[in-house]
Amino acid sequence: MKKGIFITFEGPDGSGKTTISKYVCEELTKRGYPVIYSREPGGSEIAEEIRNIILDPKNTAMDVRTEALLYAASRRQHYVEKIKPAIERGDIFICDRFVESSLAYQGFGREIGIDAIYELNQFAIEGKLPDMTVFLDVSPEVGLKRIESRSNKDRLDQETTAFHQRVYAGYQEVLRRYRDRMHVIDATQSEQTVKDIALQTVLEWLEK
Amino acid sequence: MKKGIFITFEGPDGSGKTTISKYVCEELTKRGYPVIYSREPGGSEIAEEIRNIILDPKNTAMDVRTEALLYAASRRQHYVEKIKPAIERGDIFICDRFVESSLAYQGFGREIGIDAIYELNQFAIEGKLPDMTVFLDVSPEVGLKRIESRSNKDRLDQETTAFHQRVYAGYQEVLRRYRDRMHVIDATQSEQTVKDIALQTVLEWLEK
Repeated sequence: MKKGIFITFEGPDGSGKTTISKYVCEELTKRGYPVIYSREPGGSEIAEEIRNIILDPKNTAMDVRTEALLYAASRRQHYVEKIKPAIERGDIFICDRFVESSLAYQGFGREIGIDAIYELNQFAIEGKLPDMTVFLDVSPEVGLKRIESRSNKDRLDQETTAFHQRVYAGYQEVLRRYRDRMHVIDATQSEQTVKDIALQTVLEWLEK
Repeated sequence: MKKGIFITFEGPDGSGKTTISKYVCEELTKRGYPVIYSREPGGSEIAEEIRNIILDPKNTAMDVRTEALLYAASRRQHYVEKIKPAIERGDIFICDRFVESSLAYQGFGREIGIDAIYELNQFAIEGKLPDMTVFLDVSPEVGLKRIESRSNKDRLDQETTAFHQRVYAGYQEVLRRYRDRMHVIDATQSEQTVKDIALQTVLEWLEK
């Protein structure tokens, strides 16, 4: 069986994950790598339906554990429909957010606890973790300042600074737990610099 | 703190849960009990949104673990918004289906395993199980014959006989595990007989 590679991009809101991960994806494609790009929550039809419930700003009554279960449900469907088949085909699957986001946002941000969220996600992904993760590091203050101007704020964009500080602390714990596959980039640098470093980091890792 | 009572109705499809549980609810209300009726999946606005994804016949690509996670998410929201406050107020909360349905349908019917589904639901309900459960017992064959004529079949109504036989075996395991709070009624009897027995069973239990 061919064996693909699973790469994720993580970081606080406003760290530039979407811009940087899409850039890396395009550059790898130009170089002939078989790359598939996706993002969570969502990534398949059913997963997108679940995403809509999670992010809908009118769902203010949503309990934090409901939210965690919905993220896990959306992730499961994305995993089964898209990630697993791509990896079995031998492709490189690049994903904007994955389990680490839940560990940081639900485990720390929502204060459910990182171990409970880890167990919950084990049910969803049956042990499949990324082969490599690029962490774009910006403080919550810088990240929040960057997304201030977004016109369509979703339910999570509306959270308090204290929430985002807890998420950042959660990511620090994630970095400690998974240091072997974590590649941290200072994302306060210019966009072009971050793009260059991210691409170089992934290329070097792939060519190893 | 006042302490209410949590009663659930369980049984295979076509066992008459909805008819019988609503009847018991009405009769208890007539007798002056503070009763609240609900049913799963659903029972609150967000839980109903999740229900719609679960039962939508077009969602044929849904993975069995996604389904289990969505049931748990819907249950969590129902529990936090409706069940917990009612019990804290001192009401009697009667629910058509609860955790036992997931143990039977997802644990056995979908063959995920009853222990994995139990753990998942522990995340959702944090240990809160019903005080009393009425199990309406009909074989899957009889149950399926009864629902044959339903015009709007949802995604689960369309399952195979083998699936419903596994669900029935799952309920047998549930009856063994929770025999202390399980009250089994032969639901192949006439509707009026089942109604009478169910009401009498609940009243006797309440007056104990």
